[in-house]
Amino acid sequence: MSKDKQGVVEAITNRDVDFARWYTDVVKKAGLIEYSAVKGCMMILPYGYAIWEQIKSELDRQLKATGHENVYFPMFIPESLLQKEKDHVEGFAPEVAWVTHGGENELAERLCIRPTSEVLFCEYFANAIQSHRDLPKKYNQWCSVVRWEKTTRPFLRTTEFLWQEGHTAHATAEEAKQEALDVLEIYADIFENLLAMPVLKGRKTDKEKFAGAKETYTLEALMHDGQALQSGTTHNFGDGFAKAFGIQYTNKENKLEHVHQSSWGVTTRMIGGLIMTHGDDNGLIIPPRIAPIQLVIIPVAMQKEGVLDKANELKNRLSDNFRVKLDDSDRSPGWKYAEYEMKGIPLRLEIGPKDIEANQAVLVRRDNREKTIISLDNLEQEVAQALEGLQKALYQSALQNRENRTSQVSTVDELKNALDQKPGFIKAMWCGDVACENAVKEQATATSRLIPFAQEQLSKTCLVCGKPATDMVVWGRAY
Amino acid sequence: MSKDKQGVVEAITNRDVDFARWYTDVVKKAGLIEYSAVKGCMMILPYGYAIWEQIKSELDRQLKATGHENVYFPMFIPESLLQKEKDHVEGFAPEVAWVTHGGENELAERLCIRPTSEVLFCEYFANAIQSHRDLPKKYNQWCSVVRWEKTTRPFLRTTEFLWQEGHTAHATAEEAKQEALDVLEIYADIFENLLAMPVLKGRKTDKEKFAGAKETYTLEALMHDGQALQSGTTHNFGDGFAKAFGIQYTNKENKLEHVHQSSWGVTTRMIGGLIMTHGDDNGLIIPPRIAPIQLVIIPVAMQKEGVLDKANELKNRLSDNFRVKLDDSDRSPGWKYAEYEMKGIPLRLEIGPKDIEANQAVLVRRDNREKTIISLDNLEQEVAQALEGLQKALYQSALQNRENRTSQVSTVDELKNALDQKPGFIKAMWCGDVACENAVKEQATATSRLIPFAQEQLSKTCLVCGKPATDMVVWGRAY
Repeated sequence: MSKDKQGVVEAITNRDVDFARWYTDVVKKAGLIEYSAVKGCMMILPYGYAIWEQIKSELDRQLKATGHENVYFPMFIPESLLQKEKDHVEGFAPEVAWVTHGGENELAERLCIRPTSEVLFCEYFANAIQSHRDLPKKYNQWCSVVRWEKTTRPFLRTTEFLWQEGHTAHATAEEAKQEALDVLEIYADIFENLLAMPVLKGRKTDKEKFAGAKETYTLEALMHDGQALQSGTTHNFGDGFAKAFGIQYTNKENKLEHVHQSSWGVTTRMIGGLIMTHGDDNGLIIPPRIAPIQLVIIPVAMQKEGVLDKANELKNRLSDNFRVKLDDSDRSPGWKYAEYEMKGIPLRLEIGPKDIEANQAVLVRRDNREKTIISLDNLEQEVAQALEGLQKALYQSALQNRENRTSQVSTVDELKNALDQKPGFIKAMWCGDVACENAVKEQATATSRLIPFAQEQLSKTCLVCGKPATDMVVWGRAY
Repeated sequence: MSKDKQGVVEAITNRDVDFARWYTDVVKKAGLIEYSAVKGCMMILPYGYAIWEQIKSELDRQLKATGHENVYFPMFIPESLLQKEKDHVEGFAPEVAWVTHGGENELAERLCIRPTSEVLFCEYFANAIQSHRDLPKKYNQWCSVVRWEKTTRPFLRTTEFLWQEGHTAHATAEEAKQEALDVLEIYADIFENLLAMPVLKGRKTDKEKFAGAKETYTLEALMHDGQALQSGTTHNFGDGFAKAFGIQYTNKENKLEHVHQSSWGVTTRMIGGLIMTHGDDNGLIIPPRIAPIQLVIIPVAMQKEGVLDKANELKNRLSDNFRVKLDDSDRSPGWKYAEYEMKGIPLRLEIGPKDIEANQAVLVRRDNREKTIISLDNLEQEVAQALEGLQKALYQSALQNRENRTSQVSTVDELKNALDQKPGFIKAMWCGDVACENAVKEQATATSRLIPFAQEQLSKTCLVCGKPATDMVVWGRAY
C-alpha cells in the first residue's frame, strides 16, 4: 500500500479522465494484486483473493447442488493430444506455453501447459464411458490456466489466470445443449445477484465462438466507460469432440453412440468486471453479498475510556450475522475512512464517546456516503437494511448506465458514430454472413458481442449489405 | 471402475501378499484416480477429490482462525530468481520443469514451474515489507506444484501434486520458530483427529532438512506395512532468505533489521497416507470425520412397496446431521455392499420390507463388518455412536500397529536386522555427525526419520561410532 509521509491515502487517477489508469491505480492501491517478475503474471493478494473465494464458494455450491462433481486433472497436455481436434488446436496452439525440459533432460515430446482442458477430459471420457449407465458425466475443476497473451491487464487478461472449467458428457444432443444453457443461468445468477452486474444473455456468432464448439453462449456486461466485457461463456460441443476422440457408449438398445458434450468457465476476470462496473473516484465498491468485509468499525477518540470496549462489543454482536472488521490500529480515523473507502467496504460504523452516551452510532454507506445516526437498539436491522439497499443501488446504477449507453442503428456508419460519441451496446440487424461481420469490425472497430436470446425486430435488413436480416446483434468494443 | 461380466466387484490383490500392488489396486478400483498420458501425472476423480476437499476445508478453517491469509502467486519462476538462494536452488533445480517457449516464440529467459514458491514470496516480501507495522505477514496458498520425479506413485510421489504452502515473515527469530512449531501442531491435529493417523513430532537432521532452512520440523507416520511416511513439514528459515533477498524492515527504534521467515506445507500425499494406514483386503476405509460419504443406505427388495419411500425418508432424516448417500440404482444389494466397502464408506444401512415392519434397520460397520439391528427410534444416536466408535477404532488400530513395529537398538547391525525382520520405527542414539547418519543409510538402507521432541535416553553412545550421543533418532525406511 503506498501512503504519503503524512499517512494520508494517496489520491488515485480520476475515473473520467483516464479510465485505464484509474483501473490499475485501484487494483494496486486497494491491495488486490502486485505484479510479478514474469510479464502478465500477477500475485493475487489477500484482499483480492478473498473476493475470489467469495465468488468461488457460492458458484461451487450452486454447481454441486445441480449434480456437478469436482475433480483435478493435470496441467500438462502432450503436443500430440492437443492436436486431436482440428479447430481446437488452431485456436489455442499459438498462445500456449511449452515445457521442453524436465530436470536436466530434454523431453521426448514437449508438453503444453493447459490453456483449457477439453482434450484431457475427452481422453478420460473415451476410456471411462462405456455404457449409458456411465452418463451423464458432469465434472468441474478449479485451477489455473496459461495463455501467452501479448497485452495483459490485471484480472482482465493475464498470462496465468484462475478459473473453473466444467466438462460434461451426455447421451443426447438435447441434454448437452440444455446443460450449456442451464450453466449460463447459474452464471447469470452469480453476476446479477451476487456481483450486482446486469448481463445480456445470448449466443456468439460463428466467428466469435469457442474453438471446436458447435455453439457458444455468453454473458456480456457493460463497464462504466461503455466498453463491453465478455463475462462468462458456455459451449455446446455436439458430438464433434466425441468423434475426434472416439467417445462412445452403448445405449439401452445395445447400440453404439457418440456422446454429446459441453464445457464452460468463468475466471478471475469477474473481479475486473466488478471493479469497472462499481468503482468510483475514491476506489473500489464491493457489492455487499460478496464483500469479504461488509462493515468496518472505526472507533473515534479511541483512547477515551470505554470506546474500545464498546467497539469490540459491537463487533461481536454483528459478527453473528455479518462479515465485520474492527480497525483498532493507531492510525487516525481520517486515514481509516479513506483506506476502507479505497477498499470498497460497503459500510462504515463510527463510534465515539458521545455516541456511546447517546446509545447510538454513525453508519456511512460507501456508494453515496450517506451518514445515518442509528440507535444501537436497532443495530442489526439497520445494518441489514443498509447492505440490502446498497446491493440494490449498485445493480440499479449499473443497469442505468447500460440503458443510457444502449442504442440502435441501421448502418455501419451510424454504428461507428454511436460508438465514437458514446461507447456502449449498439443493437443492429444482421444477415448472418461473416463477411458483413468482418466489415463491421473493419469499418467501425466493433465486434459482435452476442445474438441476444431476447430478440427484437428493429428492421428487416442487414446493417452492412442491406440483404434480409436474420438476427438482431449487439455490437460493441470490448476488453 | 472395472467390474466383471456378472457385475461383481473384482477382487483386489491381497494386502499382505503384495502391499504395493494392493495400494495401486485400491486407488484405481475405489475410483480415486486415473493415470494420464503424462508419466507421473494423475487425474484425481470425484471421490478422490472429495476427500481432498474435506481435508482442505478443515485445514483452511484452522489456518484462517490463526490469522493466516490466502493468496495466489504465479506458477512461473524466472531462472535467475530461483538462483538467488544457494542451498535452495541446489535442492530444487535438478527436478524442475522448464518452460522455454511462449506461443511461437522462444523466451529470453526460461521459466521453471514452481516446485515450491519461497523465492516468489521472498521477492514480494522484499518490496511489501518496510516497517514493523507490516509484520507479521502470514500467507498461504492452495495450488499445484511440479517436481520431475523419476519414480512416481499415485498420491505418494507424483510429478504434479496439490498442496498448500504457507510463507510467513516475522520481526524476530523467536516468532518465526514459534510459527513453524504452531503450524506443526495444526497439522498434527488434522492427522490425529481427522485422518485417525498417529504421528511422531520432531525435527529433521541437517542432512534431511529442507533446502535453505535453518530447521525443519516434521510429522512422521507409520504405514500398515511398516514403512514410514513423511506426512507434513514446517521450516524455520531464520534470516537466511531475508539476507539473500534483502527483506528488511525498520523496527520501533527506527533501525533496519532483517525479517525471520517460515514456510510449511502438506500435500495430496495425505490421501496416500490414509489409504496405507487404514485400508484392508476389501478396499479403502475412510475415517468418518473426513469421509465425503459417512453412511450409504442400501434398500433391500427395492421393488416392494414402501421400501424406496422409507429409504428416502431415512436419507432425509439423516442428512441433517450426516453426509449420506442412498443408492437406489438397479444393481443388486450384494454388488452395492462390495462397491461401498471398496470405497471405504464407514457405515452401511440396510433397509428391507421386514425391517420396515419391525421399525428397524441393519447397521454395518466397514472396519469390523459388525452388524447391529437398530431401532429406527434411535437412528441418529446409533449412527453417531457407530461413527465415533469407528473413528476411534481406526486410530487405535494404527497406533497399535506403530507400537508393535517400534523397537530400539544400539548398533547399526541391530538396526538392519530389526528393519529386515519387522519394518517399522527403530529408535537409536546418535552423535549428531552426518558421517554416522550416512553410514546408517549405507549399511542398513535406513534414513533418519526425525529427532522426536519427546526424547528418551536409551544409552550414552552413538549407534555407529560409539562416541557420546546427543540425540535419540527414529530411523526407518520411507516412502
